[in-house]
Amino acid sequence: MVPSSLSLKPAIEAIGKAIDQRFDRLLPVPDDSRARLYEAMRHSVIGGGKRMRPLLVVASCDLFHVDRERALRVALAIEAIHCYSLIHDDLPCMDDDDLRRGKPTVHKAFDEATAILAGDCLHAIAFEILADPATHEDPFARAELVTELAVASGPAGMGGGQMMDLAAGDTSYDLAGITRLQQLKTGALIQFCLEAGAIMGRLPESQRTPLRGYARDLGLAFQIADDLLDVEGSSAKTGKAVQKDAAAGKATFVSLMGVERARAQAGILIDQAIAHLSSYGQEADLLRAIARFAIERDS
Amino acid sequence: MVPSSLSLKPAIEAIGKAIDQRFDRLLPVPDDSRARLYEAMRHSVIGGGKRMRPLLVVASCDLFHVDRERALRVALAIEAIHCYSLIHDDLPCMDDDDLRRGKPTVHKAFDEATAILAGDCLHAIAFEILADPATHEDPFARAELVTELAVASGPAGMGGGQMMDLAAGDTSYDLAGITRLQQLKTGALIQFCLEAGAIMGRLPESQRTPLRGYARDLGLAFQIADDLLDVEGSSAKTGKAVQKDAAAGKATFVSLMGVERARAQAGILIDQAIAHLSSYGQEADLLRAIARFAIERDS
Repeated sequence: MVPSSLSLKPAIEAIGKAIDQRFDRLLPVPDDSRARLYEAMRHSVIGGGKRMRPLLVVASCDLFHVDRERALRVALAIEAIHCYSLIHDDLPCMDDDDLRRGKPTVHKAFDEATAILAGDCLHAIAFEILADPATHEDPFARAELVTELAVASGPAGMGGGQMMDLAAGDTSYDLAGITRLQQLKTGALIQFCLEAGAIMGRLPESQRTPLRGYARDLGLAFQIADDLLDVEGSSAKTGKAVQKDAAAGKATFVSLMGVERARAQAGILIDQAIAHLSSYGQEADLLRAIARFAIERDS
Repeated sequence: MVPSSLSLKPAIEAIGKAIDQRFDRLLPVPDDSRARLYEAMRHSVIGGGKRMRPLLVVASCDLFHVDRERALRVALAIEAIHCYSLIHDDLPCMDDDDLRRGKPTVHKAFDEATAILAGDCLHAIAFEILADPATHEDPFARAELVTELAVASGPAGMGGGQMMDLAAGDTSYDLAGITRLQQLKTGALIQFCLEAGAIMGRLPESQRTPLRGYARDLGLAFQIADDLLDVEGSSAKTGKAVQKDAAAGKATFVSLMGVERARAQAGILIDQAIAHLSSYGQEADLLRAIARFAIERDS
């Protein structure tokens, strides 16, 4: 039986606390003129967000009995990358958002220059964390984590997807185009979260297909759910501005498929994602619950 | 006898060509809406600059007979980081520069959003290059390169130095403050260039002291020379705006020491840098010539 997403609440709270604690320790504010930079990074990474990506990393590491403390280091790295991308995407010349995770965005709470630098520094810190021997005793694993995260966040991944999104004003994407855009913009990083468990557990390449299938389907369903929230959600619950895509005239899964078909498609994708995990037992229950949660959440 | 910096010209031309060719192969413009992102990256990294950091990487790799093609991969990574930092530093909310390496800055030639993304993607690409097995067969070396570059470019290095520089409007730095600022802002990356040779050559930690001494002294001398060029140079030769520091009322080595003392100090530092190389023979001649060039250049 597939576990209910309700059972996720304690896991989400626990991971949120664990990530906050570790960022707090990682980023003590120095007693010099770099203080503002550290405060901006802390504003972004501490206290907020669903911590979906860290949760996915921990859940995929659990499949292979990876030490929890090490799994959390990888989770910290992916969250640092995610937060850097949010800081930069929120800038006035990008999406121009004032609100993120229920707080002012970094350039609002600080200023644009500090926001750009805070994003850049979180970007570097993510790779510093991954390459550290404390993350994995095998340097092959550390180098592989770095490679995969760099590809997932660069022009063949998140960065390229964000560029496609910026071009959406001049380009009318069809469903294939939007799918590709989202696979790069958000899917690549979600795929890294699952791959990270396989790398940390030294799972042979030949056995990674089910996890990759899960990640691909989950990533798309997650994005469709985001588009639905943008149409139907409230700013109070999501902690960010809503109905921005429609206002910008951008094509989304919902604008192309309609609300009903989009919702049905997300459900099908989640069933598929869970089906990919059939060879795993109870150790994959967290991943199954996350999949359910991805389309049931209200924020 | 210390070689003249004149002998550097062919080496600078050769490295410039090698770096251009490799970026051209690394960044083919894709036939989709990410094209603009790749064009912006290419605008930044191809055709321009002194390629000082790549030259330092190759020179330090030469000390340990590192395969030239592999050394050039590390050189490419450091140049990608350097270019990302130039793109972001040139933005309107940072230094607001229109001209770089004799060409319009990326946000001028493209737009701000594309410039931020191009910088972010070059940042990721640098780590992708370093972690690739083609860079070194030993994953220990690859992970160590990643660690050192991440630290050198993050808040304890370049990013932190840039924040100190941003704060210079509200903080009056004395000579110790400016030295610290520059050690972070430009020194850390120069130190990485030298460390990279030691890592690629698997030089034991205990034998790296002379190279680190060279890097530290060279980095400071290089920055003093930059400050002198900002006061005395021409925009036509440097390919960027000059006299910006004075206009912004920022303290520099020159404003704190005066032109004559600054020039003398740079000369002393270069003598020291070269003295650190005394245990090396002819194989360090390129490093010696670079040191001379650092304070004799007019751009």
